[in-house]
Amino acid sequence: MNIIANVYRGGAVESSHSGHVAVVDVEGRLRYFYGDPYRMTYGRSVMKPIQAIPVITTGTAERFALDEADLALCCGSHSGDPRHRARVYDMLRRAGQKEAVLQCGTHVPRDTESYHRLIREQKPLTPVYSNCSGKHAGMVATAVHMGEDLATYHLLDHPVQRRILDMVAEMTRYPRKRISIGVDGCSVPAHRLPLFHLAWAYARLAAPRSISPGYVREAAVRIANAMTAQPEMVAGRGRYCTDLMEAFGGRIIGKLGAEAVYCVADREWGLGIAVKIEDGAERVLYTVVNEVLRQLRIGTDGALDRLAKYTAPDVKNMSGKAVGQIQADFMLRLAERKR
Amino acid sequence: MNIIANVYRGGAVESSHSGHVAVVDVEGRLRYFYGDPYRMTYGRSVMKPIQAIPVITTGTAERFALDEADLALCCGSHSGDPRHRARVYDMLRRAGQKEAVLQCGTHVPRDTESYHRLIREQKPLTPVYSNCSGKHAGMVATAVHMGEDLATYHLLDHPVQRRILDMVAEMTRYPRKRISIGVDGCSVPAHRLPLFHLAWAYARLAAPRSISPGYVREAAVRIANAMTAQPEMVAGRGRYCTDLMEAFGGRIIGKLGAEAVYCVADREWGLGIAVKIEDGAERVLYTVVNEVLRQLRIGTDGALDRLAKYTAPDVKNMSGKAVGQIQADFMLRLAERKR
Repeated sequence: MNIIANVYRGGAVESSHSGHVAVVDVEGRLRYFYGDPYRMTYGRSVMKPIQAIPVITTGTAERFALDEADLALCCGSHSGDPRHRARVYDMLRRAGQKEAVLQCGTHVPRDTESYHRLIREQKPLTPVYSNCSGKHAGMVATAVHMGEDLATYHLLDHPVQRRILDMVAEMTRYPRKRISIGVDGCSVPAHRLPLFHLAWAYARLAAPRSISPGYVREAAVRIANAMTAQPEMVAGRGRYCTDLMEAFGGRIIGKLGAEAVYCVADREWGLGIAVKIEDGAERVLYTVVNEVLRQLRIGTDGALDRLAKYTAPDVKNMSGKAVGQIQADFMLRLAERKR
Repeated sequence: MNIIANVYRGGAVESSHSGHVAVVDVEGRLRYFYGDPYRMTYGRSVMKPIQAIPVITTGTAERFALDEADLALCCGSHSGDPRHRARVYDMLRRAGQKEAVLQCGTHVPRDTESYHRLIREQKPLTPVYSNCSGKHAGMVATAVHMGEDLATYHLLDHPVQRRILDMVAEMTRYPRKRISIGVDGCSVPAHRLPLFHLAWAYARLAAPRSISPGYVREAAVRIANAMTAQPEMVAGRGRYCTDLMEAFGGRIIGKLGAEAVYCVADREWGLGIAVKIEDGAERVLYTVVNEVLRQLRIGTDGALDRLAKYTAPDVKNMSGKAVGQIQADFMLRLAERKR
């Protein structure tokens, strides 16, 4: 079953979640795992830091003066709070574009206050509220800079998406022709590949010395630095990605993907970690990531204490009382070295 | 793994869900199953029809002139739409009580229009919006009728909950002392017992001839009739329980429980069905129930056609386009007869 976390009510398991973990070093060695470390996995938004690299390598970031906060937002699944939205508008303005160019669609944002304001003012949700609007603003800016079609930047055959697919293959070290493609929630290509290769890409983000050519390596370093310098742009206040990167003060890069994927880059040890909850349940994902870090002794000297609210969160009833708990329940296995 | 349903993106599985099914007849014989039909399971709101029986057996329904719609609402996990709320208020008024007596807490209701109206008018969510407020109104009315304490009607030691625990043991044919108790989302006791026994209780609801004494049998028949006569009170417009009971025109009683439990009573064949998705994901539950019915050839002559939107629902992206699909993927197994 590969049970990775249980949801308790009272003293008894009510529901349980299976999952998979791959811990990979920069040389592409599997170091630890749980479940199936090669599970074929749509990376979803854990791909955003990779999708953002061409924003730099094409010269787009320089052309439109994108700073660290802008680049972090290109890598982010943001909460749609006023700062996120203002920055997306500003990136579009610098690229000479308006919100209507965004092909991401929209959804109820995590920032409840912003959503309630819309309802009170009887205004519709618009694409800027999509958690992916920063990524899309980066794609639009790239197409503008490169003189490419703006109406189709989200489609697989467009140069924006072709550059990204090349970069995914390069960063994950997985053959481009073996990457299968679906359509993501925000209408761009979603890349499916083994969990191991998602972890490897994050190991390379953690220890970019292995990335070549040099201008790609430098872009990857800028992306990594932008995310740890501006963690609120990657998610939002009170959310795991933001809290994780703040707690580790630059050591760790963390990114959520839909359907409960999570990737971590540990810049101190040069490790990449990828987690997939089999059923796609985000509710146990952060508890599992915290437990992976604990078992690897990453942050056990203090940083994980600052993430304690994610370690074994209460299940609460509708009166706000604790009636159960979410608990991680797995042990990483040491991978055997190939001879 | 007991995979019961897969979530596809493009042509590939993105996430998968495990689960369990028990199909039991009124004599308590397991007829078909999938996964572990004895999985220990908190019934959550599938217990509501059983929890409502004492509203009748105590004379409360007669005292306060509760009609079929009221009784269906006592069994319901309603959407919090204006009709549901008005009826809860009216039940409380007849029992001489006000909303503040309800101990269910509250949550965002499924009826988005009602919720948005609250936000526009800057009013708080109150207990009547809880999907359990009908059940709680029935419990309060029972305590009033019996002259019992009103502040503690939700606690395990209160006579209201003691009568319910007796009725759960009686209807499920599971020893009262082996039922373990948690606290439900709405603060009343949550009963945990084997999935098989949840199915058996629904078989008895489907074919009440096996229930004794006669006044309990008559109450069970009234509950079953109320639910099929007033399916909108059991859930709400556009929801599975309501659509299922309408599609079958009185043959089928169906009830959702939190953490992805579902029970069905088939009054034609005298069968009870209980389903639990291991990870608690409601998103695949109705697809699985439809597939159980199809494999049992219940409704294959037409009723299931009217539930087609639940059979293999699209996964849509944020622009509303289909990018995947949810599919049931299991075969019920015939249980061996005990010799």
